[in-house]
Amino acid sequence: MSSGNPGDKPIDRVGVAVLGCGVVGSQVVRLLHEQASDLAARVGAPLELKGVAVRRLDAPRDVDVPTDLLTTDAMGLVARDDVDLVIEVIGGIEPARPLILAALENGASVVTANKALLAEDGPTLYEAAEKAGRDLYFEAAVAGAIPILRPLRESLSGDRVTRVMGIVNGTTNYILDKMDTYGSGFEEALAEAQELGYAEADPTADVEGFDAAAKAAILASLAFHTRVTASDVHREGITEVTAGDVASATEMGSVVKLLAIAELNEASSGESAVSARVHPAMIPRSHPLASVREAYNAVFVESEAAGQLMFYGPGAGGSPTASAVLGDVVTAARHRLQGTTGAGESSYADRAVLPMGETLTRYHVAIDVDDRAGVLAAVATAFAEHDVSIQTVRQEGRGEDAQLVVVSHEATDAQLSATVEHLRTMEIVRDVTSVMRVEGTE
Amino acid sequence: MSSGNPGDKPIDRVGVAVLGCGVVGSQVVRLLHEQASDLAARVGAPLELKGVAVRRLDAPRDVDVPTDLLTTDAMGLVARDDVDLVIEVIGGIEPARPLILAALENGASVVTANKALLAEDGPTLYEAAEKAGRDLYFEAAVAGAIPILRPLRESLSGDRVTRVMGIVNGTTNYILDKMDTYGSGFEEALAEAQELGYAEADPTADVEGFDAAAKAAILASLAFHTRVTASDVHREGITEVTAGDVASATEMGSVVKLLAIAELNEASSGESAVSARVHPAMIPRSHPLASVREAYNAVFVESEAAGQLMFYGPGAGGSPTASAVLGDVVTAARHRLQGTTGAGESSYADRAVLPMGETLTRYHVAIDVDDRAGVLAAVATAFAEHDVSIQTVRQEGRGEDAQLVVVSHEATDAQLSATVEHLRTMEIVRDVTSVMRVEGTE
Repeated sequence: MSSGNPGDKPIDRVGVAVLGCGVVGSQVVRLLHEQASDLAARVGAPLELKGVAVRRLDAPRDVDVPTDLLTTDAMGLVARDDVDLVIEVIGGIEPARPLILAALENGASVVTANKALLAEDGPTLYEAAEKAGRDLYFEAAVAGAIPILRPLRESLSGDRVTRVMGIVNGTTNYILDKMDTYGSGFEEALAEAQELGYAEADPTADVEGFDAAAKAAILASLAFHTRVTASDVHREGITEVTAGDVASATEMGSVVKLLAIAELNEASSGESAVSARVHPAMIPRSHPLASVREAYNAVFVESEAAGQLMFYGPGAGGSPTASAVLGDVVTAARHRLQGTTGAGESSYADRAVLPMGETLTRYHVAIDVDDRAGVLAAVATAFAEHDVSIQTVRQEGRGEDAQLVVVSHEATDAQLSATVEHLRTMEIVRDVTSVMRVEGTE
Repeated sequence: MSSGNPGDKPIDRVGVAVLGCGVVGSQVVRLLHEQASDLAARVGAPLELKGVAVRRLDAPRDVDVPTDLLTTDAMGLVARDDVDLVIEVIGGIEPARPLILAALENGASVVTANKALLAEDGPTLYEAAEKAGRDLYFEAAVAGAIPILRPLRESLSGDRVTRVMGIVNGTTNYILDKMDTYGSGFEEALAEAQELGYAEADPTADVEGFDAAAKAAILASLAFHTRVTASDVHREGITEVTAGDVASATEMGSVVKLLAIAELNEASSGESAVSARVHPAMIPRSHPLASVREAYNAVFVESEAAGQLMFYGPGAGGSPTASAVLGDVVTAARHRLQGTTGAGESSYADRAVLPMGETLTRYHVAIDVDDRAGVLAAVATAFAEHDVSIQTVRQEGRGEDAQLVVVSHEATDAQLSATVEHLRTMEIVRDVTSVMRVEGTE
């Protein structure tokens, strides 16, 4: 545990640099100005904005920044002697990483919203912060304004978290919500989301689950005191989700959501292990996450003592994200004045990260079959051959063929996907029309 | 801001005393034992249980406490040299207050779940903690396991909170939920709650809103950086809520909840002021708080930058409350090792607390009237005379008489209650059958 840097001179004001003045940065600058007196009262000393690093001095922006504070020399800004705290809201890996490392080395605490960098290379940043005796905070990196990282790191630090299940990407939740409400297909719902500004022109990072996977890695690391990077996270997006899948979910009283899941599982060795994954899943409409509509985010946490908790709010947007950034700024500034730091990286548990194949889950499978005697028995036998136990089967005749909808009990993902492959090869099976994981029930 | 006590000697283990071994205390003792190695890793040093103060040594309890740790001498326990952290889970004002004050004076940090004491005399405790250079934490005092105080104190410290609206009493939520689901009356639902252990034999503290009022005071203090005590909180319980009120709410797409509300209002002077109140209110079924069922709690927070947030989970129970206590224990123990403290009382804003009469709210009023021409005009005139603007009126003929259901726009509570008194005196009004505030819509 670090307690600041013994060589520090006491300060009576906190010099702040902001890197990036886009959607989030401009709101951070606005709030630093508008709420200056409240912030000073809460920190115990004034926050003084020393500079704002931008790519182009003459770019249009949402906030008036005094011209003499703007600079294109970000590296020069973080190296200044009078900068005690650096707020990084550029995003992406480069040049954010060298700037954050330089800021820490120069003795500044860092507040960042950079999920991609934290999920790729968090330990390097933590180590630099630890070495410098400075804070590294990043509440805004997951679920925007929703306080979720601080509760996980601090409020639940006396408990044992067993599962974190979040809707952490607003774009995909908006699309799935429209598909659920209007019965539209993915492409149609995506086009609407793009028109309304909920999805970008290139929606890959959102709809393919990359954004959610970075957040899943961060949540898994904090919840389970283990290093988990984005590459450890099994990732499936929502581009394959069909109107039929959504209708099938509705028929069983469920709704399709893109979930980021971090769980404590048991490895085949018997030791506890972490699983981290992002995929669409059906959850019951009675589950608290089911009622998260539009582009809202929510994170559902299960722990041994506390039971079930949920944190809900706006997951993105300049002003909400700036709220989370400034909460961290107040804490880091207080620590800087006190000559102390908050908790750093906690990776003591050092658990293994399970491959997806060993992760326990449940499948919903819809199958078009020939409508003749013995079909159900044959399908049930296929499940049994892979040691997958069936929870429910619904059978519906539809003219010459019939549809079987099977929901399994829990089994490893490898067993379940092998079962589906097996079904596809069976002569009586005309088509496997929907395969989706089922969560939130056991 | 305090940074521990300069005279402190460094410690390499943290001595812990637990005061009270009832529903919560026994779970705290259990978790201290079961999760000892995790707690030590997170704190950075082992937590050593030095003693558990109980009223009777031979009382039956839910956890095995080694006999040599039990004592009936609570004051002797908190005075011990090797106790660095005191967990108070006795509850009530006496003897909790002198014990906490003695613990702080003796140089121990304090974690408590004592809402009643904090709401009555929080500033005295804060001052003692400040003077001693020690922490005073109390996450468990409001909404059990739900991390809400730390997010308010820290995560949102860079934002401006404008309203906190919570379902913070599980007993009354259970009763109202049953009334909503089954159409039962208050007495019937209360009896069921008592049978199932959700309500006590003497349910006064819950159903009359005393418990929620203490929590409202704590929430208002933290959200608005102003001292608010339980006596500042306007309090109405749910004993007057009828099956008719609940049915009337359903007809307008709403549900009745007991809400603890802390708001930033404008005083007649034009300055910002705080209002704090507990009363039943109708909220739309689409509001996130409406879906909080059974004995669950949730706190809905609105702030300028973050927008709308909600925190949901179990509001009571031994094990969930112990989770919140232990989260605070980890933080306070870390600070003790670092020779620092977290943020203390924040009352710099020092806002006035508005009397209920000046608080802005909206009323739902159902009136039985004579079914003849001019009735609606007469009722509308009565509202207008008190400067209360009407949002909607629904009129239903029912044989010889008719029912008018009026929902007002926002006005002061004094104007609204004067309007209702006026209605009661009107000749055409047979009865005012339901009066309830409306929240969550503006």
